[in-house]
Amino acid sequence: MQIGVIGLGRMGGNICRRLMKAGHGCVVFDADAKPREALAKEGAIAAASLEAMVKAFTGKPRAVWVMLPAGRITEETVAHLGTLLQPDDIVIDGGNSFYKDDIRRAKELAQKRIRYVDCGTSGGIWGIERGYCMMIGGDKAVVDHLDPIFAALAPGRGDIPRTRGRTNGDARAEQGYIHAGPPGAGHFVKMIHNGIEYGLMQAYAEGFDILRNKDSEDLPEEERFELNVADIAEVWRRGSVISSWLLDLGAAALAKDPQLKGFSGFVQDSGEGRWTIEAAIEEAVPAEVLSSALFARFRSRQGHTFAEKVLSAMRLGFGGHVEGQGPADPDAGSGMPSKDAAK
Amino acid sequence: MQIGVIGLGRMGGNICRRLMKAGHGCVVFDADAKPREALAKEGAIAAASLEAMVKAFTGKPRAVWVMLPAGRITEETVAHLGTLLQPDDIVIDGGNSFYKDDIRRAKELAQKRIRYVDCGTSGGIWGIERGYCMMIGGDKAVVDHLDPIFAALAPGRGDIPRTRGRTNGDARAEQGYIHAGPPGAGHFVKMIHNGIEYGLMQAYAEGFDILRNKDSEDLPEEERFELNVADIAEVWRRGSVISSWLLDLGAAALAKDPQLKGFSGFVQDSGEGRWTIEAAIEEAVPAEVLSSALFARFRSRQGHTFAEKVLSAMRLGFGGHVEGQGPADPDAGSGMPSKDAAK
Amino acid sequence: MQIGVIGLGRMGGNICRRLMKAGHGCVVFDADAKPREALAKEGAIAAASLEAMVKAFTGKPRAVWVMLPAGRITEETVAHLGTLLQPDDIVIDGGNSFYKDDIRRAKELAQKRIRYVDCGTSGGIWGIERGYCMMIGGDKAVVDHLDPIFAALAPGRGDIPRTRGRTNGDARAEQGYIHAGPPGAGHFVKMIHNGIEYGLMQAYAEGFDILRNKDSEDLPEEERFELNVADIAEVWRRGSVISSWLLDLGAAALAKDPQLKGFSGFVQDSGEGRWTIEAAIEEAVPAEVLSSALFARFRSRQGHTFAEKVLSAMRLGFGGHVEGQGPADPDAGSGMPSKDAAK
Amino acid sequence: MQIGVIGLGRMGGNICRRLMKAGHGCVVFDADAKPREALAKEGAIAAASLEAMVKAFTGKPRAVWVMLPAGRITEETVAHLGTLLQPDDIVIDGGNSFYKDDIRRAKELAQKRIRYVDCGTSGGIWGIERGYCMMIGGDKAVVDHLDPIFAALAPGRGDIPRTRGRTNGDARAEQGYIHAGPPGAGHFVKMIHNGIEYGLMQAYAEGFDILRNKDSEDLPEEERFELNVADIAEVWRRGSVISSWLLDLGAAALAKDPQLKGFSGFVQDSGEGRWTIEAAIEEAVPAEVLSSALFARFRSRQGHTFAEKVLSAMRLGFGGHVEGQGPADPDAGSGMPSKDAAK
Repeated sequence: MQIGVIGLGRMGGNICRRLMKAGHGCVVFDADAKPREALAKEGAIAAASLEAMVKAFTGKPRAVWVMLPAGRITEETVAHLGTLLQPDDIVIDGGNSFYKDDIRRAKELAQKRIRYVDCGTSGGIWGIERGYCMMIGGDKAVVDHLDPIFAALAPGRGDIPRTRGRTNGDARAEQGYIHAGPPGAGHFVKMIHNGIEYGLMQAYAEGFDILRNKDSEDLPEEERFELNVADIAEVWRRGSVISSWLLDLGAAALAKDPQLKGFSGFVQDSGEGRWTIEAAIEEAVPAEVLSSALFARFRSRQGHTFAEKVLSAMRLGFGGHVEGQGPADPDAGSGMPSKDAAK
Repeated sequence: MQIGVIGLGRMGGNICRRLMKAGHGCVVFDADAKPREALAKEGAIAAASLEAMVKAFTGKPRAVWVMLPAGRITEETVAHLGTLLQPDDIVIDGGNSFYKDDIRRAKELAQKRIRYVDCGTSGGIWGIERGYCMMIGGDKAVVDHLDPIFAALAPGRGDIPRTRGRTNGDARAEQGYIHAGPPGAGHFVKMIHNGIEYGLMQAYAEGFDILRNKDSEDLPEEERFELNVADIAEVWRRGSVISSWLLDLGAAALAKDPQLKGFSGFVQDSGEGRWTIEAAIEEAVPAEVLSSALFARFRSRQGHTFAEKVLSAMRLGFGGHVEGQGPADPDAGSGMPSKDAAK
Repeated sequence: MQIGVIGLGRMGGNICRRLMKAGHGCVVFDADAKPREALAKEGAIAAASLEAMVKAFTGKPRAVWVMLPAGRITEETVAHLGTLLQPDDIVIDGGNSFYKDDIRRAKELAQKRIRYVDCGTSGGIWGIERGYCMMIGGDKAVVDHLDPIFAALAPGRGDIPRTRGRTNGDARAEQGYIHAGPPGAGHFVKMIHNGIEYGLMQAYAEGFDILRNKDSEDLPEEERFELNVADIAEVWRRGSVISSWLLDLGAAALAKDPQLKGFSGFVQDSGEGRWTIEAAIEEAVPAEVLSSALFARFRSRQGHTFAEKVLSAMRLGFGGHVEGQGPADPDAGSGMPSKDAAK
Repeated sequence: MQIGVIGLGRMGGNICRRLMKAGHGCVVFDADAKPREALAKEGAIAAASLEAMVKAFTGKPRAVWVMLPAGRITEETVAHLGTLLQPDDIVIDGGNSFYKDDIRRAKELAQKRIRYVDCGTSGGIWGIERGYCMMIGGDKAVVDHLDPIFAALAPGRGDIPRTRGRTNGDARAEQGYIHAGPPGAGHFVKMIHNGIEYGLMQAYAEGFDILRNKDSEDLPEEERFELNVADIAEVWRRGSVISSWLLDLGAAALAKDPQLKGFSGFVQDSGEGRWTIEAAIEEAVPAEVLSSALFARFRSRQGHTFAEKVLSAMRLGFGGHVEGQGPADPDAGSGMPSKDAAK
């Protein structure tokens, strides 16, 4: 099957490679000539513009996989494709678009009888090797039509054991992809996936933080331990209740440097973590952990918040407490309860 | 009534003054000669040691108010008093001791028939003028005996309107003090008071943070407002649902400097906030807000947490995400959802 | 000054009364005849339809205060007014609309040269007596024009002490109202006000919960206290750091019934608490406490969440833990750490 | 090597079996005759009392593995063993004791030259097959002496891939056990393990909750999806960033019943989750996610909290809001923002 791929970054390029390896043909475009030339050498048909790309297809209906950063560039590209494609052609947004945008785009393109599929794609830089886990939204007919593509990208059953008691349900799920529902449903499920991911990461992160600070001088000497976080991460991979792929990654990073000195701790977030909380709020579902994980990232990107200054100002106001001078202050790490007078 | 006061800092000194103004006699001690000499000039009997202080009392039973930082110094002073005082004498811990320490001390002193009272004292530097709100633990007889002292320190009914529907209950509550229960109960109630205080402060602080960042360049231009947080704090003092004394203090600080430039945002915590969470855990009571308020203070005292580095390391691991370079990074304040590629 | 008021419920009716008492004339409408007839008897001109109301004005420009539940009914009423009013007339939305709706409506009405003001109004059922705290968004000219109305509704300086150090800023703030900014700014500030309100309420609520459970049988007997929460609430009103108007209300409720038996604990939320979190997310401001307060309300309205069932299912999965049978289970309140075997 | 095992429940019995399968000899005791007779049939030497068990050892030093619920029974058993064992004998606490108890016990037993090892043991009911992940605290000599036991219980390297970049560190970690540090360190690490586990579980649980409520009638009809949570859990096991053993268990439960009707959602917690938060507080480490996960469990065990009643009482106080009547109320699930009037 022939498929177009737009956006040849970390994700898009490897998706092409995995598809070509499975015998599919790829027509590729990227604003940057370098990656498209690289893929041309590997067997893809490279086009220098969206227009050229659409023309380069050898059959119909065309299916174009858009693999761009969510937001304006994806929006514009999908809109542009809407002017270039023909009835029955297919646009697949494989990025991390907001699912309400999918619902809207599917409606807009439907007016031209162009079909729209949203495909939440997990797997990161390891996907080329490990396969991509895909959560797909769209009409049944078009998702079925694209099945060979999804099947090629998916990890397949591999050596992951079957779930006990699983006797029905979508068979594709065991191959690593599902048809989640109508347009938007794919990205919605992927969004929640990422929301969960934030929560899982923060849970590990807090745990390692408590382990590492167990040698704090604020603790009674007999209760201090110098723990080897790299060994702990490693052992938890093996037989423990909390083993996971994220822990594998954490163990690898800690094995390389238990202090993680190469990292400042400035943590970006992308849209999904935010939208997950908004979805929880719309549904009136409590999401304490997922929101805390998001806020920890917000906090990580600031020297101090204005909120903290308000706290200091109030403390001065009622108690005459002059604040510490920041991390350079001798009291910095302590916050020792016994040091504060009654107020 | 004659009372001893140990610890003549911000709180202890003013407590003496308020007591003397009400006609009580004070015998005072502080390791530092300066404050005790100052109080001597104002009419107190100053003693240069605990021993001298105990001898300086003109009647019995003696009552000694300990107003020292919670922790070792209070512990040692109470223990020392236990060796100097006589049966029927009274030790009042007016500081912020942990209530389980009160329970233990009361038992220990009871073996010598010395009576122990724990008095959680709120009011901060304003107490001398506004009166102190007191939460008292101890046996009924001794709390009743000390009533003139508590009545003098308390704010009294003042012009605070009576609570509608309040027809019974401890009449002292309307004067600003209560006998909360047996030894430990006073500090337990004060501890929860401070736990609540953290939560209230953090609620205001987050609100002002959101107000202040409403002119962020990350927002669509038409949705940005430059809000005057000083005026907002002021107006909320008047007729709004969220008016409070803490807001009054916040309004004063913001009136002085709406940017709060004089504060770094490094926020200490004292024991009560921590012990409140431990009490919640012991009782299996969910305390989301009170714990979040505590953790925000912990976070405020660090450049970056190890947890954040773990997050960055994992993100690099699965997505090849290289972290921002800290607040100097062009992306620093943004965390724009649309900038992240799918992973 | 003559003003129209639409919506004569708890808030709207009292706003009329306070305005008429200050000498302003009111033209009123409500879908329900009863409240409008009641106000007619008190001196208002009552109209039986929006159309009739607009015609009943005796001068120009007309100013109409819409005091309806946020959402569709307000939206439709404002749109309807847009078809009835004339250039220079004014629509004031005094309800709790979402501020982005204000921005949009102001633009839409501006095309007809109708002026739009959003006025966040705090004070609840006490406002008629205590005055309303108002946060106003709109163009300077129209806000200035309406000043007599706002001044009449506001609490005025009263006996609330002036903020120390406040020497400049909007003088209206000390009367209890501010011009916060352009259209939308009023409701934005009111929204944050309500977000803070949720946080404050939850802080008190958790504190009282910990106090009340201090007699739990799960605690060692010597550490149990039977605390009088009504007396505690009362004493905190007097001289403590956490005194506030919300605490006054809590004290009144607890004075009436310390068990709060008349309440089930099913807690609604309105839009502002939700939108506050969304605003925080848009600005990348951590809002741990405000979001926790919102989620606690969501949780309060459910018997059990699906999340909790997932937890139980996982616990059974890894540990063979059979869950308790719900609150009727003998273990219900305990969650005693020592009862669980290692897993 | 011969080892005693006390406590033959879910964990202890299987530990014996795994040890015997590896060629070790077991001397077993349980207060209940049934499981010890069962194990006798499988080759263990069964004793009817602690005394008999100690005598039944055929060599020295004896090593006794205590596998009992944390708390009083473990405490008493260890103390009893202290009176029965001889110098150089070893007590291993394989349960979930609080690590400060380990520190104390190790000191107490050291006075009799009895050696103490704490071994946090993860693996649950699957451990017999999958092996146990062990985190061990104690002196080096005794931990080395017991190595054959730990090696037999551990999962071994199996087919879990090696961590990239891991070139040094404790080789045992790759077999599934570590010597974490001095007495107490083993249980400390296990405690954090369980704290993380709570966070991970809650992250998944919240995510599934948001998925399941995506068909809520509170949402606009076009934004509702009926999602198949069983298929979603399954697909996430395969190639996604959030694959984990806990997810495997969740997928199995959802495959069996996507509604999880067999569960009420009443979730116990054991000590480790609580102690993890206390440890975080002692170290001043923010632990938002781990604490939220704990509090969600507390909340799950109550019909309503007193905190929620306080909220309702305050809402009635300022806004005249009469609360919904509980889940049977027509508004129960909604909390629709637009339904609330301004207050």
